[in-house]
Amino acid sequence: MNTKGAAFLRARRPEHKRQRYDAILAAARELATAESVNEVSLADIAERVGVHKSALLRYFETREEIFLRLAEAEWRDWADALVAALPEVAGEPERVADVLGASFADRPLFCQLLLHTPLTLERNVSIDVVRPFKLALAKAMEDVAAALQAALPALGPSGAVELAAVTGMVAAGAWQVANPPPVIVVLQEELAECQALTLPDLPDVVTRFARVYVAGLSGLSDTCR
Amino acid sequence: MNTKGAAFLRARRPEHKRQRYDAILAAARELATAESVNEVSLADIAERVGVHKSALLRYFETREEIFLRLAEAEWRDWADALVAALPEVAGEPERVADVLGASFADRPLFCQLLLHTPLTLERNVSIDVVRPFKLALAKAMEDVAAALQAALPALGPSGAVELAAVTGMVAAGAWQVANPPPVIVVLQEELAECQALTLPDLPDVVTRFARVYVAGLSGLSDTCR
Repeated sequence: MNTKGAAFLRARRPEHKRQRYDAILAAARELATAESVNEVSLADIAERVGVHKSALLRYFETREEIFLRLAEAEWRDWADALVAALPEVAGEPERVADVLGASFADRPLFCQLLLHTPLTLERNVSIDVVRPFKLALAKAMEDVAAALQAALPALGPSGAVELAAVTGMVAAGAWQVANPPPVIVVLQEELAECQALTLPDLPDVVTRFARVYVAGLSGLSDTCR
Repeated sequence: MNTKGAAFLRARRPEHKRQRYDAILAAARELATAESVNEVSLADIAERVGVHKSALLRYFETREEIFLRLAEAEWRDWADALVAALPEVAGEPERVADVLGASFADRPLFCQLLLHTPLTLERNVSIDVVRPFKLALAKAMEDVAAALQAALPALGPSGAVELAAVTGMVAAGAWQVANPPPVIVVLQEELAECQALTLPDLPDVVTRFARVYVAGLSGLSDTCR
């Protein structure tokens, strides 16, 4: 039982409520980063914070809302990083691809949450909980698409959204392949056929992907093909 | 309660056991295709077959094994379709991309199961249940990579596996975007910001993706860039 949580068993004053809210999110983030999102239960988070499960539900509707709030923060952080980094590499397709690839590879929790959001998180919260998440996601995507287009004008508005979206899908899929459940780890050692299926490390896969896709987008508009 | 199921409440003879096994898989497939995999419970499948839940567990370890068996069949069916279709378009990168894109777009259940497999299915079965699935997946990937490389030798062995893998990841992600939970459908009508996030139809997204990626793979090896 964590002492920070034990310090006040029920938060009553606003600043204590805020501390408790942040402590819950921090605990969920630590657990999901150490293990994987689907292995983290409400009970695990409560134990980490040092309170009873029921206390968490005074702050969040469901376990899924906790992770949706983390996803909201990850989308914003991802967009801010790209908006800051892309101007440095403007006009250089390969370096833009590397910056985009790294923006996912540096955020393993984001890669996980990209899959959990449509599959489970959005399905277990009320519309009022998911609304601010969707608005944050839309704003992050808008900012990233604008930064990508400023860095590589040839992408055009739809190409920039497309590039960000498919790179995220591949980063999410590659994280799953790179972090298999225990039973698969055993099979990968047991079966030569499974070893052939393993991909390179996540950063290499995603950066390689972004480079190929950027080349493809420009390639399709090239006359030399 | 479905009459086929009602016809014999407990299957005892081998051919009846086989019929029951197949009826369970068929019911799970119908329900998952009509709704979405995560909305289909063991109870839903049992009701569709016309038996009690406990009867299903004489044939399958868990709900997840039922969907893992469907995934196994989908991987094989996907590979057989590509092995048959790719020779027709050999040497034509755009048509190869279209055939690959269509192989996912024509299989919405496959697109769903690609995400559920690492996230939930492989995590809720024994190693003996997942082993034949992994072997079937490895064989399907091997066959598809060989067919892609025969159609476009420039891909090389790693390029062929890479193309099939990332196209699958994008098809899986695009299916989720194209089939949001009810709460998201409401928000998409309510919020202009969400409308900007919707993608074109699944077949268009995946085929467009495959075309760009194939162009990128050849583009990277082109001297004209």
